[in-house]
Amino acid sequence: MTTTSAETPAAAVTLKSRHLLGIAGLDADEITLILDTAEAMKEIGGRAIKKVPTLRGRTVVNLFFEPSTRTRTSFEIAEKRLSADTLSIATATSSVTKGESLIDTVRNIEAMSPDMIVMRHASSGAPHLLARTCSSTIINAGDGMHEHPTQALLDAFTIREHKGRLAGLKVAIVGDLLHSRVLRSNVVLLNSMGADVWACAPATLMPSHIDRFGVHATTSVDEAVEGADVVMMLRIQHERMHGHFIPSVREYFTLFGLTPERLRRASRDAIVMHPGPMNRGVEIDSAVADGEFSVILEQVSNGVAVRMAVLYLLSGREAVGAIDEH
Amino acid sequence: MTTTSAETPAAAVTLKSRHLLGIAGLDADEITLILDTAEAMKEIGGRAIKKVPTLRGRTVVNLFFEPSTRTRTSFEIAEKRLSADTLSIATATSSVTKGESLIDTVRNIEAMSPDMIVMRHASSGAPHLLARTCSSTIINAGDGMHEHPTQALLDAFTIREHKGRLAGLKVAIVGDLLHSRVLRSNVVLLNSMGADVWACAPATLMPSHIDRFGVHATTSVDEAVEGADVVMMLRIQHERMHGHFIPSVREYFTLFGLTPERLRRASRDAIVMHPGPMNRGVEIDSAVADGEFSVILEQVSNGVAVRMAVLYLLSGREAVGAIDEH
Amino acid sequence: MTTTSAETPAAAVTLKSRHLLGIAGLDADEITLILDTAEAMKEIGGRAIKKVPTLRGRTVVNLFFEPSTRTRTSFEIAEKRLSADTLSIATATSSVTKGESLIDTVRNIEAMSPDMIVMRHASSGAPHLLARTCSSTIINAGDGMHEHPTQALLDAFTIREHKGRLAGLKVAIVGDLLHSRVLRSNVVLLNSMGADVWACAPATLMPSHIDRFGVHATTSVDEAVEGADVVMMLRIQHERMHGHFIPSVREYFTLFGLTPERLRRASRDAIVMHPGPMNRGVEIDSAVADGEFSVILEQVSNGVAVRMAVLYLLSGREAVGAIDEH
Repeated sequence: MTTTSAETPAAAVTLKSRHLLGIAGLDADEITLILDTAEAMKEIGGRAIKKVPTLRGRTVVNLFFEPSTRTRTSFEIAEKRLSADTLSIATATSSVTKGESLIDTVRNIEAMSPDMIVMRHASSGAPHLLARTCSSTIINAGDGMHEHPTQALLDAFTIREHKGRLAGLKVAIVGDLLHSRVLRSNVVLLNSMGADVWACAPATLMPSHIDRFGVHATTSVDEAVEGADVVMMLRIQHERMHGHFIPSVREYFTLFGLTPERLRRASRDAIVMHPGPMNRGVEIDSAVADGEFSVILEQVSNGVAVRMAVLYLLSGREAVGAIDEH
Repeated sequence: MTTTSAETPAAAVTLKSRHLLGIAGLDADEITLILDTAEAMKEIGGRAIKKVPTLRGRTVVNLFFEPSTRTRTSFEIAEKRLSADTLSIATATSSVTKGESLIDTVRNIEAMSPDMIVMRHASSGAPHLLARTCSSTIINAGDGMHEHPTQALLDAFTIREHKGRLAGLKVAIVGDLLHSRVLRSNVVLLNSMGADVWACAPATLMPSHIDRFGVHATTSVDEAVEGADVVMMLRIQHERMHGHFIPSVREYFTLFGLTPERLRRASRDAIVMHPGPMNRGVEIDSAVADGEFSVILEQVSNGVAVRMAVLYLLSGREAVGAIDEH
Repeated sequence: MTTTSAETPAAAVTLKSRHLLGIAGLDADEITLILDTAEAMKEIGGRAIKKVPTLRGRTVVNLFFEPSTRTRTSFEIAEKRLSADTLSIATATSSVTKGESLIDTVRNIEAMSPDMIVMRHASSGAPHLLARTCSSTIINAGDGMHEHPTQALLDAFTIREHKGRLAGLKVAIVGDLLHSRVLRSNVVLLNSMGADVWACAPATLMPSHIDRFGVHATTSVDEAVEGADVVMMLRIQHERMHGHFIPSVREYFTLFGLTPERLRRASRDAIVMHPGPMNRGVEIDSAVADGEFSVILEQVSNGVAVRMAVLYLLSGREAVGAIDEH
C-alpha cells in the first residue's frame, strides 16, 4: 500500500485543505502535486480494465444545483474508476423546491456520512459557505461566476502535456470574460505558475476590475493572439446575452471569433482550447475547433484524470503508489 | 456465513411478511428486531470502508412517483452500503406519462427480476395494491397520506438510542396532522411499543377521526409539550396550504411553532425531532432546530442504518452475523 | 477464463460490426449467435446472485434523448448484471439545451473513454451518423421511426423459446405501422430468419412503401390473425394521433383491437406479444393482455438477457464460457 515508484511525486507534499473550493488557496507545489498525480491517473484510463479499488467503500455525492452534462459525467466516471459509490442529485428532484435552505439540504446529505460532496451552484461562494458549516470534504464543480477549479486544473494539465511547462507561456483567453468562472480559476492558476496571461473581450464583456486580475487586458483579438502559445476561447452564453452585451452573434464572430486566419498570428505550435460546450460559428470557427491545433477533446479526456487525482488526494490517501493496491 | 455473535438478535425472530407496507402489520417483536438490526448496521456506517457484501448481486429498484431527495438518497446509500445494484426511476422519465397504468409499469419492472422495489407514490394504498399482484418484495417509502414506515422506524431508533426505551415515554407530535403519513406510522409504532402519544394541531389540521388513533388529541401546544420526553414537529406543507388551513405562516408560528420558551415546558432531557424538510420560522424556531436538544440530523443519519436493516431482513438473509461474511 | 461448455455456441461466429445500429446489417448467423448467447445470459438472471464479472471495469453510457423507462431500465440492469460501470444521461440535463450539436455532445462523452454508448434519439439515423465519426461502440436503443434492434431481438428470442424456431411461422404485426421502429426492425429480422410476416393497419397508419417491406400487407385484422402463430400488437401512440390518423380510440378498438374473439382465429397455440407500454382497451383487450396466450411480460424479462448478450458480444469477449470467469 505504501510502495512508491520513482516516477511518483514525493509523498511529502500534500494538499493543505481537505476541500477544493477554488484555485485561490492552492500554492504552486499543490498545483504541481495534482497535475503529477493526474498523470498516474491518466495511465489507468488507458488500461482495458479502467478501475482501481482506491476509493472502494467511500461514498461521493454529486450535488448539482445547475444542469451540467460534461462536468457531472466527468466526475461520475472519475469516481467510478476509483471504485467509489456515487450518487447524483439534480436540482429538479431536490427538497430545495420544498423551500428548504441550501445549508439544511447539504447538512441533511452530510448526515448520511458521504465522504465527499461534489457541488455545483449558481451562487458564487456557495461551496465556501458550506465548507464552513459542514464536516464532509467539498469539491467545487463551479460556483456562479466565481471559480471552477477542476476546469483550470485540466486546462493546465493539457497545456503542460503539450508544452512541458506553464511558466513563461503566453496564454490568450478570449470571449465572455464577465460571466466566466473558467477565466477566474485559470487566471489564478496560470499566474501562480508563472504564465503570461492575456485577457480579451469586447468592452461590454470585460470585468470592470480586470486591472486587479494581474493580466494584460485588451479588446483586440489580434493583439491577444499574437505569438500566443495557447489560445483559450470562452463560450458566449447565448442564454445570458439577449442583445444586451453583443450586437449580434454574426458581428461577434466577425470581431472576436477564432478563425484560421486569426490563429495564424499565434505561435507556430500554438494549441487551441475551449472548455465547452462550443458555439461553432460564434466564438470559434469549425475549421479551428476540428483543426490540427485543437486540443479541445483532449481537455475533456484529461478532465477525468484530473478529477480522479483531486478525489484521490482529498480522500486522504498518502501516496500515489496506493492506487494499485489491488 | 451463519456465524452469529452474542450481541446480535436471536435468529429465531424474523419478519413475517416479505413486504414492508406499513407499521400496521408489524408486531412489537418485529419492530424490536428491525431496531436491533439497525444497531449493527449503524456500526458499519462508522467504519472507514462503509460497505458489506451482503446484498451483492441483488437488484433494488427505487421507484419514486413523487419527488424526494432525502428518502431516495437515504435508501440509495443504504443499498450501496449493502453492495446491492441500485436503479432509480423518477416519475418524469417514466412510462406513466405515456398513459400506462401503475400496475403495468410495476409489472414491467418486476419482469426484469429486481429483488426489491422501494416505492413512493402520491396515492394512499398504492404499494398495498402492488403487493397483491406482484411477486417482488415491496418497501413503502411513503404512500399519500397513509404510511411512511421507515420514517417511523428511524424515529423510534433515535428515541431508543437517547432514552433506552420507548415504553412509557410521553411523545408530543405537533403540526399538520391531517396530511401526515409520518403521524400515522409513528402513532401505530409508538402505541405498539407502549409510548404515551399526544397529537397537537390547529382544529383545521386535526384529522376528524383522531379519536380512533388512540392518542391524546389537543389544540394546545403547551398541553402537548408539558413534561414531554420527545417533541416531534411536523412540517407545514406550504404547497397544500393556500390560506385554507392556516390564516398565515406568521400566525401559525406564533400559536404552534416550537420556540425555546415553549420547549422549556418539556422534560429537562427532552429531545426535539423533525422528519424534514424543515420550515424554519414556521413550525420550528431556528434556535430550537439547531439547539442542544435537537436530534434532527441524527434522525437522518439513523435513517440509513434503519433502511439497511429493513433491506437486509427482507432480503431473506437468516442472521445478522452474515453481514460480515466478506 | 476460456473454458467453453458443450452447450455454448461455437466461438467461430462473431459479430462483424463493433456497433449494433440496426437489424439491417446482421446476417442470420449473427442473429442466431445473439439469441444463443442470450440463452446463457438468461440462466444468470435465474440465479440468486445475478451477477458475473464479465464487464468489470468497462464503462457504459446510456444516452437517452427521448424518455424511456422500460428500455433504459432494461439496459441498466443488463449492464449491472455484467458488472459494468453505468452512467445514464437524459436529455433534460444535457448540454443539448445549451445549443451544442449532437455530434459535439457525443464526441465529448466519447473523449471520457466509455467502452460503449447506448443511445436513443428521436431522429432516424442519429446513431448511424455517430458511428461514422466516433470510435466507441454504439448500440441503438431506438432511433426515430427507423430501428429498435434489441426489441426485435428480444421478440425473436421469445418466439424461438415458445416455438423452437422462427422459420415458417406466420407472424401478424398489427397497429400503428407508420410510426413504428419496432415494425421495421422486426420485419428485417423475421424475413432474414424465414418467417412469414403479415402487417396490418388502418390505411392511414400503413407506410406508403409497405410493398417494399417484403410482407403481406392488409387492412383486415381477421385476415392477418387467421392461423397466425404469433400476434404482435403495436402501440397506438395517443400523443401522435390527435384525430388525424384514427377517428377515435373507441372506433380503433372496435376495428383493430385484439379481443378474445379475434384471437380465436389464430393458431391454437398462438402467442400474443406487445412491445409496451400497452394501451389497454385501445389496441388490446385486457382479457388478452393478461390471458393464457400472452407472453408480454416474458418479452420484458427476455429483454434483459438479450441486452446482456449484445453488450457481451460487442465488448469483444471471445467466448461465452468467459462469463463465468469469476
